[in-house]
Amino acid sequence: MSMDTLIQRIVQTQNPTVVGLDPMLEYIPEHIVSEAFAKAGEGLAGAAEAVWRFNTEIIDAICDIVPAVKPQAAYYERLGWQGVRILYETIAYAHKKGMYVITDGKRNDIGSTMEAYAAAHLGRVKLGQKECEPFGADALTVNGYLGSDGIKPLLAICREYDKGIFVLVKTSNPSSGELQDRLIDTKPVYEVMGGMCEAWGQEVMGRHGYSAVGAVVGATYPDQLRALREKLPHTFFLVPGYGAQGGGAADVAGAFDRRGLGAVINNSRGIITAWKKTPDGVRDHAKAARQAALAMKEDILSYLGSIAL
Amino acid sequence: MSMDTLIQRIVQTQNPTVVGLDPMLEYIPEHIVSEAFAKAGEGLAGAAEAVWRFNTEIIDAICDIVPAVKPQAAYYERLGWQGVRILYETIAYAHKKGMYVITDGKRNDIGSTMEAYAAAHLGRVKLGQKECEPFGADALTVNGYLGSDGIKPLLAICREYDKGIFVLVKTSNPSSGELQDRLIDTKPVYEVMGGMCEAWGQEVMGRHGYSAVGAVVGATYPDQLRALREKLPHTFFLVPGYGAQGGGAADVAGAFDRRGLGAVINNSRGIITAWKKTPDGVRDHAKAARQAALAMKEDILSYLGSIAL
Repeated sequence: MSMDTLIQRIVQTQNPTVVGLDPMLEYIPEHIVSEAFAKAGEGLAGAAEAVWRFNTEIIDAICDIVPAVKPQAAYYERLGWQGVRILYETIAYAHKKGMYVITDGKRNDIGSTMEAYAAAHLGRVKLGQKECEPFGADALTVNGYLGSDGIKPLLAICREYDKGIFVLVKTSNPSSGELQDRLIDTKPVYEVMGGMCEAWGQEVMGRHGYSAVGAVVGATYPDQLRALREKLPHTFFLVPGYGAQGGGAADVAGAFDRRGLGAVINNSRGIITAWKKTPDGVRDHAKAARQAALAMKEDILSYLGSIAL
Repeated sequence: MSMDTLIQRIVQTQNPTVVGLDPMLEYIPEHIVSEAFAKAGEGLAGAAEAVWRFNTEIIDAICDIVPAVKPQAAYYERLGWQGVRILYETIAYAHKKGMYVITDGKRNDIGSTMEAYAAAHLGRVKLGQKECEPFGADALTVNGYLGSDGIKPLLAICREYDKGIFVLVKTSNPSSGELQDRLIDTKPVYEVMGGMCEAWGQEVMGRHGYSAVGAVVGATYPDQLRALREKLPHTFFLVPGYGAQGGGAADVAGAFDRRGLGAVINNSRGIITAWKKTPDGVRDHAKAARQAALAMKEDILSYLGSIAL
């Protein structure tokens, strides 16, 4: 249950990172885009084709050294239903290559609507005599502003299908404090939300000390990250903000427990657009992504030593 | 700009309501589902086909008396990319029939990712030489937990394409108070969020006293709804919770200003599953939906008299 599958992949690869697949066309080498437009036409279908080719090449290049990918739903929706189809195909391809998949959708709603999101992204639906897996990710990011009614339907799916969620707690953006740092009694909102994650997680504990309810905590607030690691001992962290947003390995070191577990650090543009800063990157963007992923792993492991259960 | 288009449709139809299109297969008459399965196969494609036929029949039946529809993204994602395609088709069909469309997606993220959501649901994207409209709704529900970084990219799109957003402020569910009612200094979280809506809205004011930044405020908390109407004079309300969730016309009366404007009341299951409670409803679910929509209009207008600019 829970984050166990992700934890096992992290230990196998000795790499607590996840590569964000956030494919804007300007992140994709020109020749891939023009071939895709030639094949499927300029527009949504052609752009989706370019993203598909780009994603599969990135996945091929990193699947043996990186435990997980995190497609960001917004970039797929930006290409209409044609793009959303490629989200589905990308998840299936990453699974075929043995990777753990976190759909970054920050979904939120209540009751039967949240059940629909949970079934969509993590579960299965029965339609006539057929059972279908609409998207089939392993974990989903969610927003807890609506309280337990928005989270409980997910816990049922986490239990039934062995999946996980990451609840937004302290996000990496500059304005995250406008609400999240405001005090409720003596605690900031993000700590209240973190406490709810610990409580929700009690129902879905895994074998390695972490529950199925993780939290998103930004690398750009290292003090809060370290403090939350202490306060939320059963909550696995998904940490955005490393790389392009300014966080470094020193900033994320506090996210880990003494085993080197407890967090997975995301990098999107720093990996998938690494080709732009590499001699010959245009011709081999996938190799550039692999090298950037290895450099990030080394950078973070320099603080952790090794990762062991 | 802003909510002006919605306001004009409300005045034209003298009807401040929106019909939620939340299509679970069990909400759709059996003969439609079996015909769709026969045509497109049991599974995601067949279910999407059933939803498409159901939605168009509902829209045909209500488009002259109801100003707006609100498809809930979760129910389309639950049917995979095939369902998301029907979300796109439904929006286009409702537009053809003159209706205002609010996509209920409760999207949230930051910076370039929020720009991607904004372009996806409300804007346009340039792909090669072609400009495409990925989903093309008129308004989108969003979650403001991430602060201004998550809302500002939407304001640019609202201004450029004359669109609106509805930010979650006080939701209709029982557990909404777990976070939203907690006090920051002396104000509940939902009031802080409401105040942010007023501030964001200043940049995108419309001609009728309301900005492009609306708020979601549940019918199930009538006292807070009335108090927020006073405190947020430029913020148009989208009000869920009427009907199936227990709110009645008396509960939503406080959402309106003295002109009978300021709010649009949602009803989903109460309209689209009205056929289940109607003699002969199976054979004419669309007529049952129309009658339920008319009854809801009368119910709410009994408190408002008429609606005038």
